[in-house]
Amino acid sequence: MKKDDCIFCKLANGVIPTKTVYEDAEFSVIMDAAPATRGHCLILPKEHFANIYEIDEETVGKAFTLSKKMAERLTERLGCDGFNIVQNNGEAAGQTVFHFHIHLIPRYKTDGQRIAWKPGTPSEAEQQSIFEAIS
Amino acid sequence: MKKDDCIFCKLANGVIPTKTVYEDAEFSVIMDAAPATRGHCLILPKEHFANIYEIDEETVGKAFTLSKKMAERLTERLGCDGFNIVQNNGEAAGQTVFHFHIHLIPRYKTDGQRIAWKPGTPSEAEQQSIFEAIS
Repeated sequence: MKKDDCIFCKLANGVIPTKTVYEDAEFSVIMDAAPATRGHCLILPKEHFANIYEIDEETVGKAFTLSKKMAERLTERLGCDGFNIVQNNGEAAGQTVFHFHIHLIPRYKTDGQRIAWKPGTPSEAEQQSIFEAIS
Repeated sequence: MKKDDCIFCKLANGVIPTKTVYEDAEFSVIMDAAPATRGHCLILPKEHFANIYEIDEETVGKAFTLSKKMAERLTERLGCDGFNIVQNNGEAAGQTVFHFHIHLIPRYKTDGQRIAWKPGTPSEAEQQSIFEAIS
C-alpha cells in the first residue's frame, strides 16, 4: 500500500525524482537531502509502513540485510572511517517523516558530528525493577 | 566462534552474569549498564562478529528482526513515547565494544536525550559527485 500524502512513498516509488543509489522490487536507497555527513543515505521500503511497529518481520529483516550491503558499498566507495545505522520511531525519538526508514551514515574522523547520548547512572534497584518489567 | 578477551562474548554467553531480558540459540538481549534512558538494552549475537562488515547477512537479518520484537515488548511494558534503534561501527561512529551490537533505546518525551545530528547543506554539485561515486 502507498499513502497518498507521504513524501517518502513518492520518493521511493519515483513519483518525485531523487538521487536513487540503489533500487530493487521492495526498496529504494536515496541520498538524504540534509545529510549528516558525506554520503548519508536512507533505505525506504516502497510500501508504506509508518514505523518499526507497523512494518512486518520479513520486510524489516530484508531492510536491515540491505543496510549491511549498503554499508559495505558506501564504505568502499567513500573511504569512511566508521558507520552508523539509525532507525527512529516516533517524534520523541526524532522521527520527522512517518514512513519507516533507515539512516545510513558514513562517519569520518573529522566530520564534527556526535551521534550519541549521555550515559545514565541508575541505581541497582531501579535497574532491577525495570528488568522485572521487561523480562 | 567466541573471542577470549571480549566482554560481550562473555555477557552474551552467560560467562559473566548480567540482566538478560531475552535469550535464544543465537542472541542475548541484555540491559545496558549505562543506559541512555529507562530500559535501554543491547542485542548481542552469541558468536563474535566485530561489526556490520563481519557479521553474515543471515545473522544480521535475524538480529534486526529481533529488534522489532524487542521494540514492541519494551514499548508495551514501559509505555515509552518513541524508540531508537542504533547500530554503530568503528570508533569514528562511537562504537566502544568491538562485538556487533544493536542499541534498543526507548524514548520518553522528557528524557532529556538528543540522538540526532546537525543537518548538512551540501551544494547540488557536491551531492551529484557523491551520487556518481556510490550509485
